[in-house]
Amino acid sequence: MKSFASDNYAAVHPAVLEAIGAANQDHARAYGADPWTARAEALLRDAFGADARSFAVFNGTGANVLSIRAACRSAAAVICTDTAHINVDEGGAPERIAGVKLLTAPAADGKLTPADVERLCVRMGDEHQAQPGLVSISQTTELGTRYDPAEIAALAAAAHERGLLLHVDGARICHAAAALDCSLAAITTDAGVDLVSFGATKVGALGAEAVVVLRPELADALPYLRKQSLQLASKGRFLAAQLAALLEGELWRELAGHANAMAARLAGAVAGIDGVTVTQAVQANAVFAILPEAATREVQEQWPFYVWDPATGEVRWMCAWDTTPDEVDGFAEAIRTAVGARV
Amino acid sequence: MKSFASDNYAAVHPAVLEAIGAANQDHARAYGADPWTARAEALLRDAFGADARSFAVFNGTGANVLSIRAACRSAAAVICTDTAHINVDEGGAPERIAGVKLLTAPAADGKLTPADVERLCVRMGDEHQAQPGLVSISQTTELGTRYDPAEIAALAAAAHERGLLLHVDGARICHAAAALDCSLAAITTDAGVDLVSFGATKVGALGAEAVVVLRPELADALPYLRKQSLQLASKGRFLAAQLAALLEGELWRELAGHANAMAARLAGAVAGIDGVTVTQAVQANAVFAILPEAATREVQEQWPFYVWDPATGEVRWMCAWDTTPDEVDGFAEAIRTAVGARV
Amino acid sequence: MKSFASDNYAAVHPAVLEAIGAANQDHARAYGADPWTARAEALLRDAFGADARSFAVFNGTGANVLSIRAACRSAAAVICTDTAHINVDEGGAPERIAGVKLLTAPAADGKLTPADVERLCVRMGDEHQAQPGLVSISQTTELGTRYDPAEIAALAAAAHERGLLLHVDGARICHAAAALDCSLAAITTDAGVDLVSFGATKVGALGAEAVVVLRPELADALPYLRKQSLQLASKGRFLAAQLAALLEGELWRELAGHANAMAARLAGAVAGIDGVTVTQAVQANAVFAILPEAATREVQEQWPFYVWDPATGEVRWMCAWDTTPDEVDGFAEAIRTAVGARV
Amino acid sequence: MKSFASDNYAAVHPAVLEAIGAANQDHARAYGADPWTARAEALLRDAFGADARSFAVFNGTGANVLSIRAACRSAAAVICTDTAHINVDEGGAPERIAGVKLLTAPAADGKLTPADVERLCVRMGDEHQAQPGLVSISQTTELGTRYDPAEIAALAAAAHERGLLLHVDGARICHAAAALDCSLAAITTDAGVDLVSFGATKVGALGAEAVVVLRPELADALPYLRKQSLQLASKGRFLAAQLAALLEGELWRELAGHANAMAARLAGAVAGIDGVTVTQAVQANAVFAILPEAATREVQEQWPFYVWDPATGEVRWMCAWDTTPDEVDGFAEAIRTAVGARV
Repeated sequence: MKSFASDNYAAVHPAVLEAIGAANQDHARAYGADPWTARAEALLRDAFGADARSFAVFNGTGANVLSIRAACRSAAAVICTDTAHINVDEGGAPERIAGVKLLTAPAADGKLTPADVERLCVRMGDEHQAQPGLVSISQTTELGTRYDPAEIAALAAAAHERGLLLHVDGARICHAAAALDCSLAAITTDAGVDLVSFGATKVGALGAEAVVVLRPELADALPYLRKQSLQLASKGRFLAAQLAALLEGELWRELAGHANAMAARLAGAVAGIDGVTVTQAVQANAVFAILPEAATREVQEQWPFYVWDPATGEVRWMCAWDTTPDEVDGFAEAIRTAVGARV
Repeated sequence: MKSFASDNYAAVHPAVLEAIGAANQDHARAYGADPWTARAEALLRDAFGADARSFAVFNGTGANVLSIRAACRSAAAVICTDTAHINVDEGGAPERIAGVKLLTAPAADGKLTPADVERLCVRMGDEHQAQPGLVSISQTTELGTRYDPAEIAALAAAAHERGLLLHVDGARICHAAAALDCSLAAITTDAGVDLVSFGATKVGALGAEAVVVLRPELADALPYLRKQSLQLASKGRFLAAQLAALLEGELWRELAGHANAMAARLAGAVAGIDGVTVTQAVQANAVFAILPEAATREVQEQWPFYVWDPATGEVRWMCAWDTTPDEVDGFAEAIRTAVGARV
Repeated sequence: MKSFASDNYAAVHPAVLEAIGAANQDHARAYGADPWTARAEALLRDAFGADARSFAVFNGTGANVLSIRAACRSAAAVICTDTAHINVDEGGAPERIAGVKLLTAPAADGKLTPADVERLCVRMGDEHQAQPGLVSISQTTELGTRYDPAEIAALAAAAHERGLLLHVDGARICHAAAALDCSLAAITTDAGVDLVSFGATKVGALGAEAVVVLRPELADALPYLRKQSLQLASKGRFLAAQLAALLEGELWRELAGHANAMAARLAGAVAGIDGVTVTQAVQANAVFAILPEAATREVQEQWPFYVWDPATGEVRWMCAWDTTPDEVDGFAEAIRTAVGARV
Repeated sequence: MKSFASDNYAAVHPAVLEAIGAANQDHARAYGADPWTARAEALLRDAFGADARSFAVFNGTGANVLSIRAACRSAAAVICTDTAHINVDEGGAPERIAGVKLLTAPAADGKLTPADVERLCVRMGDEHQAQPGLVSISQTTELGTRYDPAEIAALAAAAHERGLLLHVDGARICHAAAALDCSLAAITTDAGVDLVSFGATKVGALGAEAVVVLRPELADALPYLRKQSLQLASKGRFLAAQLAALLEGELWRELAGHANAMAARLAGAVAGIDGVTVTQAVQANAVFAILPEAATREVQEQWPFYVWDPATGEVRWMCAWDTTPDEVDGFAEAIRTAVGARV
């Protein structure tokens, strides 16, 4: 099966599997006290700066909740968009596990603005209101858009001047950096970001993410919070090997860049189809579009993908590191046929 | 490096890596809606009974906390031994994440008894006391001992007659079943157990466990609780492939049996060493012993292992699926030499 | 000082103080096992129906969080309006203490509709979404409006047909019943409500509320949840005496009716002032209005009241059981003078 | 009814009721922004030192859980005795609401020692173990014993040298200070205590306690934590009036001293009864004793009191501010008669 459903449907990149196999020798100290973890940490310092401290975790929800717990030890609320993964796709984990309230801003393009931060920082100092302590953005956003370095720096400034921290849910941060042709640090460390959920799974790992802490004083508590948040792997070398495989020589850039290129190719291919409207700027590896519902159902039978908004018929087409040009072309052709029969 | 530190230091069994590789084809539905998950679930039904419902998770702490949350939706306390992993090795996760209080019984051999359950079920109906809703035991125990089917049945009866459920932390349940030469069901389903943390990592997986629910009415909430507890893998096929690889043809029995045999060999080899006292019955893959502290330090330099109790000098030697007879003999010889120099 | 700030600024009704004094004789069993508690419970059964079970608590946030915990033992989300007290005025307690996510509907008049419930019950059965288990409405609403029995019955039906329960935050439920000239049961029990935060403090108590459970199967857990939620008074007779004093002979109706009448008088008095716009229907004891900001500041110096929305200049004027007609008239005159100087 | 069951069964002191009545004039700002609260805070500064900051709450469980939350914002465990109120009588609130694990030391006399602190501070820095951040002691203890200033100073030193804070559950701290004939500061501030649950209810209030913070940097978060922990009274003046009434002229000392004297009288009166064994040093207002079970049952019919340990027949007799010498003598006589009939 091939699909345009999610980069989570994608396979594991061969280099990741090889790295896992290579790490499978003899015994190694558990819980991250192993050479593979040391190597992954060094590579993450190369990527995010010498002061970055990183903590491998299992999945994106784990990385996000752990980041929130680390950042919100004396705060009660987190500012994000209404479409944020932490708001709509994590089963209430931020509220139940991290204990925070989410203060959300509507965002047609999935992007938070400094004005949103200002607007949601009302009633500061009023004990009746959950006091915000963190701004969390997704890079790329859940709508396939991205923040450029200046936008992130402006958000960091807006957060910091009010005493808040800035977190990046980077489930697809590699796709953003590839699309912007910049370093990971350029859209995080250098822009004033305080902590990052670094996502590797969607760019080709089997299942590995890391919380990267860019404000050193936050790091001391992380080992305890990670363990307590159910995110400490016993055979830690195998998470680390995955992270290292994607970071070595910036393999992530090649894989994310390819996924982005496939999305651009798809957007181009459907641009001329009468009855298909692309609804979001295609800035990374996702294409959002509206097409006739009957066409959606027909195409889904062969190529699984998600309906994003049943009310409008908006769908999401996600490209992955292993999406091929032929698949894009075949998929676009199937859309053309299905839509053409209906408009 | 080879060690007697933990079965978490061990490598991944080749069959598990092969299964991961074999699952790495094309796209697959995420979050467990894939054929590998269906296969693992079927194998777990074969092992635990037709009514068993299973939910793959990342690690043992995750499996335990999820089990507690599933079982304690209207209870506030869990009964366990003072040496239980949930009591001493999970960073307060049962309290902070599941929200329960642990009521502990001292247990010199690591095993809970029906009398403990009765004693800790005082003040039932008194709103000032956290009301127990679950009994949790470890199989094998943290001290390397095991429960036989009749002991578990007696605990299940003690729990059920008071309205409590019985959970088995089965991080090493395969080692118990191998040692008892019985089925997994014989020490769970057939003995009245309500839910199990089925451990695969310590018996040869890369990192995969499952919550197995034997009381069907508990299962409906599990998908939501798993997601909220940060334990839902996106590329779920790779957890399932690991579980299936170990369950197919009961590979787990061979691997756990080997680890148990190595522990027996080690216990035998140190039995005659003057200055070494084995402190617990060797009933699975662990040996606990007391030896001179200086000898401990000397041997640890070459063969890492844990000091269990710094006050008494008691140490833990853990054998794994990949421990070899030669390693056992070499290790025992190193102990003999180090101890001999001191007594 | 007299004010139009909040019915929380008001004094305690003399009958409540007398009842406290009358209860202050000899020793009495603690934690609610006393005759005053039995009397209050009987009076609450008179008011809410023979099956009602009640649990005295300290304050409104306590009553609401306890109600949510009782109703959401296997759910993760609560549906309410964006202006709900539980959403904006409880310091994140529903999220942090009850562990739920709030799913909010915008409501210009503070009232939730069945259509809101339907709209927010999307993705039922999707483990990634916090699953709603409760609808919570405020009666009267935070904007001074009220639900009539048919509206509540429609919400109960909308909730129940989706498997959700209906909770009423009745911090001012007495004001609603007085305004509607109906029984408390008519807008709760008879309309299908499942549990109520019954508010006594704002209608004249010193500090006492009760969770009233109308679905008997929810009641068994309440004693434990109340204790654990820090809401069990040791000298319980003094909470009960307050509740009983207000329930005996429906004293609450007289007091709430008076407060409502004062709000109506105030609304009437400002209706003709050029520069003052009443913004919400005046259906209980609150008046919302917009007036020039400078006038607001001038009047506040003598008569404290809250600015509701700094962006629009909307203010809230709240009348209490002890607000007098002279005070209303004097206040209205002060408004007339201050506004008149500016328009 | 008069009893020896609990100082919670006792009435409210007339001066407290008078103070409530006196505070019941006009409107007052809600949530503690009123002159009575300012007065209570000033009196608490007089008692605990100029840097003390205080926060009125509803009850003892609330005060304790709020103290734990304030002290343990980055820690996961609290050290206390096994008989501590937070361990056995708060329905799991410390675990569920504050999210901490309790590490308990057995204590035959109810008192924690520096050696206990040292012993429970093992595995510091090990992420698998819930890391202690707070030591909590009860003054007087749940067994009627008390700590003198030097004992508290030693515990504070033991806590501080390991980076932990020291909390006093002072539900009966007035009884301790009265018995020691010292100031409240002598057994808190001057001894190095970091925060106190100051109990007023058991010494004569209707229902009022305060968290007193002696380490200023902890105080900033208290208003938010208090609100979120359901402990912020709306008509705050009535909690403050109670506290002030008991603090003015150290009324608490007279009332607690009387209760202590009644316990001493009772201990003296039963000392000569053959068949009654006093089991704990009588150092405040409680007497613990063992007597024949049948005698216990007979006396309880007229004079309610608690069986402390059903296994041994140990009972607790608690004296209150309103216990009279005649009651003590009558109670002792009833014990003499009931026991005499059986030994």
